[in-house]
Amino acid sequence: MSDAPLNRIDDLIHGKARLGIMSLLMTYKQADFRFLKQKLGLSDGNLGANIRKLEEANYIEVEKTFYKRKPKTVCKITETGKEAYQAYVQTLEKMLYGQERESDED
Amino acid sequence: MSDAPLNRIDDLIHGKARLGIMSLLMTYKQADFRFLKQKLGLSDGNLGANIRKLEEANYIEVEKTFYKRKPKTVCKITETGKEAYQAYVQTLEKMLYGQERESDED
Repeated sequence: MSDAPLNRIDDLIHGKARLGIMSLLMTYKQADFRFLKQKLGLSDGNLGANIRKLEEANYIEVEKTFYKRKPKTVCKITETGKEAYQAYVQTLEKMLYGQERESDED
Repeated sequence: MSDAPLNRIDDLIHGKARLGIMSLLMTYKQADFRFLKQKLGLSDGNLGANIRKLEEANYIEVEKTFYKRKPKTVCKITETGKEAYQAYVQTLEKMLYGQERESDED
């Protein structure tokens, strides 16, 4: 049962906020905190917590710099993150487009 | 911000167990409790609770019958459920395949 597609869904990516962060970083390669916040409509706290989770998993890298003397947090997707995202999308596609049935008819 | 794609993701479907139930019912139209349990690798309690949530939202219909004198629970997807699932898939596709960027360049 552990090989059910359900169990192959990466919880770290499936959470809505993290899915939003990851999909934006897949598109833009890198993005700063303000941009992510505005695009995703998340609070500072929620966004910060989810960025930390992704950073801990080494799915993204976080760089703190200064811009016009103000702190700026830039997030980039890592190779590990890209691979995890691609695996997630593949697993999800299998579920969403009902490939279940084919394997059931073997 | 409330129109961020993130906020259009239907939480009722996005939850992993419910996503599994809904995607199986989209493929098979109807399925009994045992089949869902086996396919999804969920416990009775977890599967039952998620079936109830989907039934309360009128995404699925649940029929309790008897088969060889044993109770049998059959789940079917409703029209509302089909529409919700299709809307969910569309929203998710927009996120997964990075259509964000296009709208950003308007």
